[in-house]
Amino acid sequence: MTYDLVVIGSGPGGFDCAVEAAGLGLSVALVEKDFLGGTCLNRGCIPTKLWLGATSAIEELHNQAKMKIATGEIHIDFAALQGRVQKHLTGTRKAMGMQLKKLGIDLVEGLGSLSGEGTVSIATADGEQKIEYKKLVVATGSKPIFFPGLEPDNDCVLDSDMFLSMETMPESLIVVGAGFIGLEMAQVAHRFGAKITVVDAMDRVAPLEDPEVSKALRSTFKRWKWDILLEKRVSGVRTVDGKALLTLESGEQITADKALVAVGRGPVTQDIGLEEAGITLQFNQIQVDEHFIAAPNIYAIGDANGQIQLAHAAAHQAHYVAAHAAGKIDTPYTSGPVPSVLYGAPEAMRVGAMENEAFLTDFDTCQTSRAQLAANPMAQAHAFTQGFVKVVWSGGKVVGITAVGHEVSRLTTAATMIIQQDWTAEDIHSIIFSHPSLDEALLMALKAERKDIQ
Amino acid sequence: MTYDLVVIGSGPGGFDCAVEAAGLGLSVALVEKDFLGGTCLNRGCIPTKLWLGATSAIEELHNQAKMKIATGEIHIDFAALQGRVQKHLTGTRKAMGMQLKKLGIDLVEGLGSLSGEGTVSIATADGEQKIEYKKLVVATGSKPIFFPGLEPDNDCVLDSDMFLSMETMPESLIVVGAGFIGLEMAQVAHRFGAKITVVDAMDRVAPLEDPEVSKALRSTFKRWKWDILLEKRVSGVRTVDGKALLTLESGEQITADKALVAVGRGPVTQDIGLEEAGITLQFNQIQVDEHFIAAPNIYAIGDANGQIQLAHAAAHQAHYVAAHAAGKIDTPYTSGPVPSVLYGAPEAMRVGAMENEAFLTDFDTCQTSRAQLAANPMAQAHAFTQGFVKVVWSGGKVVGITAVGHEVSRLTTAATMIIQQDWTAEDIHSIIFSHPSLDEALLMALKAERKDIQ
Repeated sequence: MTYDLVVIGSGPGGFDCAVEAAGLGLSVALVEKDFLGGTCLNRGCIPTKLWLGATSAIEELHNQAKMKIATGEIHIDFAALQGRVQKHLTGTRKAMGMQLKKLGIDLVEGLGSLSGEGTVSIATADGEQKIEYKKLVVATGSKPIFFPGLEPDNDCVLDSDMFLSMETMPESLIVVGAGFIGLEMAQVAHRFGAKITVVDAMDRVAPLEDPEVSKALRSTFKRWKWDILLEKRVSGVRTVDGKALLTLESGEQITADKALVAVGRGPVTQDIGLEEAGITLQFNQIQVDEHFIAAPNIYAIGDANGQIQLAHAAAHQAHYVAAHAAGKIDTPYTSGPVPSVLYGAPEAMRVGAMENEAFLTDFDTCQTSRAQLAANPMAQAHAFTQGFVKVVWSGGKVVGITAVGHEVSRLTTAATMIIQQDWTAEDIHSIIFSHPSLDEALLMALKAERKDIQ
Repeated sequence: MTYDLVVIGSGPGGFDCAVEAAGLGLSVALVEKDFLGGTCLNRGCIPTKLWLGATSAIEELHNQAKMKIATGEIHIDFAALQGRVQKHLTGTRKAMGMQLKKLGIDLVEGLGSLSGEGTVSIATADGEQKIEYKKLVVATGSKPIFFPGLEPDNDCVLDSDMFLSMETMPESLIVVGAGFIGLEMAQVAHRFGAKITVVDAMDRVAPLEDPEVSKALRSTFKRWKWDILLEKRVSGVRTVDGKALLTLESGEQITADKALVAVGRGPVTQDIGLEEAGITLQFNQIQVDEHFIAAPNIYAIGDANGQIQLAHAAAHQAHYVAAHAAGKIDTPYTSGPVPSVLYGAPEAMRVGAMENEAFLTDFDTCQTSRAQLAANPMAQAHAFTQGFVKVVWSGGKVVGITAVGHEVSRLTTAATMIIQQDWTAEDIHSIIFSHPSLDEALLMALKAERKDIQ
């Protein structure tokens, strides 16, 4: 049998693509070398959010205690938490497997690689299996990358996969890389009482965000007594005498129980026959056209094409590719604004353009308007009032929304819709925002006086 | 001097109306008999949310403890919390006062009443003061109402104002009236350890909501060991020997440290010369036309006109009336969907039509689609997975969204926009929902299979 569609990789991109294609009537096989759900479910977003959720009361209590309203203490049983995470993942994978069965999608477990036109070869537990496809979707995802000297040893030097598999939480932690992955995991360790050191080569934490967001986050982390070492290049980190020993290029050394290396992720595109099949890789990223086609009858979506390393971007691409493969759509893919969220307390949220983005200078009239969270009763209620919402305008339209502070992830979907819909000042009053709500900080920012971007 | 606009009442309707009118160039006076901000700020939504926020860690801890992940205890210093509430209210009122000053709005403190055409008479601390207006906005709000036998005595029988002013939290509480006000306050008392009894004449809690929401809320409250007495008529409640003694019509008696009577709120429209000025009252509600005009040159907005008892509805009406009074707009007012939110843990959220609403039978094709929160990783992370999101469709368009469960208030603004914009199935994929997020439960509900409403 030749499948209409074979999908390699069952992360948010691959799984959704298989499901949607089957829903459109295609015969589908899904190839997965490890666990259903891929990195996001098993070694990424989901376990991290389960950790953050389970420990969120600690931070709430801390904030109320600082206002002298609350006292008390909370102990989290890390082993129990890890057990709960595994139970959730197992349950979710089971539900996913049932969904595949219900839709008649064949799950083939093993490492898939391209072996000649129209054929995928899978190294299964029972030996090699070959399946034929009319169309193929490569959704192989990404994995942690390392610079020389920063390779994890799964002893005291960990990547994010290993960190999420720990049996005990360390009492001290060095995080190399101040991006969202490192910062979310550091927040969890901090809640368990770990002494945190963050090291980054850039001059700010969350270096991809608006510099004011970086500044606000750093100010909170400093209050938490984190050591934040910026503009520091790491020459190496290794396990020495049961501790992580990090050496900066300056020669300075830092030690902690564990080191988490979170300097980035790169596509999983090697040694699976991609280039032999006529696919072009650049920095390991699969090059695709405006239909996500990488070679005749072969699509690539999600982290594997390297365009946006976010689960929801992959899922949105999957939705398009399933329809395209089924012949339901032929116009080029348009993404619309893709939100990006740092969870925890505080949180950060961004969708659309940032004030500091250079391309803004191409626009006619760029302005910002903003609201501080200190004026918002919900931020006040949770005793965490630092932070703001900033709106970026261009030609009278909203082109970007950025926020940092208490639960600003709440603003994400509304902000995405506002940007997608090119809101102008006239649109602000078309919607009734509930009162009181954190969302009103977004309303305030939209209504606030605008200032030209210099 | 004759003011272009005089506003009586400085709640969310009156204050916003004064500010917006001044922004449009009108000369404005604002009359307030008590505190700036009215009920919502001083005796309603805001203090309640500060209570809920300050105690939220207790519920988070409780949920994680039930999963055997967390242990610990949290003590809230109620006196400190009340001090913090007062500090927040004072600060907010001060900021509002400064805003009035900056905009050149005259604040006149005292009870305002209409005294002859174009004149408001104010009973100030320094005696009677008269001011002249070209146009008047009556935004006098609402106050708790009582049935005979349920009058509060400010000893053990309290209305919501008195409840929010307590110096200690009672160890046991009877709440008469299972609407949002009673349920939010009962949740707070519960977190302080109070034994809760809820009594309502209706056959369900939150009787204005979708019956499935009522059922989900009741199930949670039952797990919390609340006594929920439904379809019970109260013949009276009074203070006896330092306790609240409630007598049902059946003769059964219930006692507790305090009783909170929260059976509804009614307009504040008596004894201020409204009818003498040609205004029509019906059930104390000021009757208005489609421009909120109650009599020549007199508008009425917010709770006083009794259309929707919600602060954000009042503020939206205020925005319209300010523009109408300034001659900027003459088309009839259109509200758009007005969201309604029960805060706490769990929360409930509703915007647009509910499945059970009779008028739906007028539509051609009414359907519902739904998603359970149990499948959502954020609900899982917070160990509170009961609840659902339900979408009501009519003629292929989204006309209502209802949810109950962990933090479903997060869905409010996006849900309001979806209904306001008449989303069809085609619109669902126009927006990228961030992953993971509670908002994805809304996405799942929108995408789910629809069932005809019987």
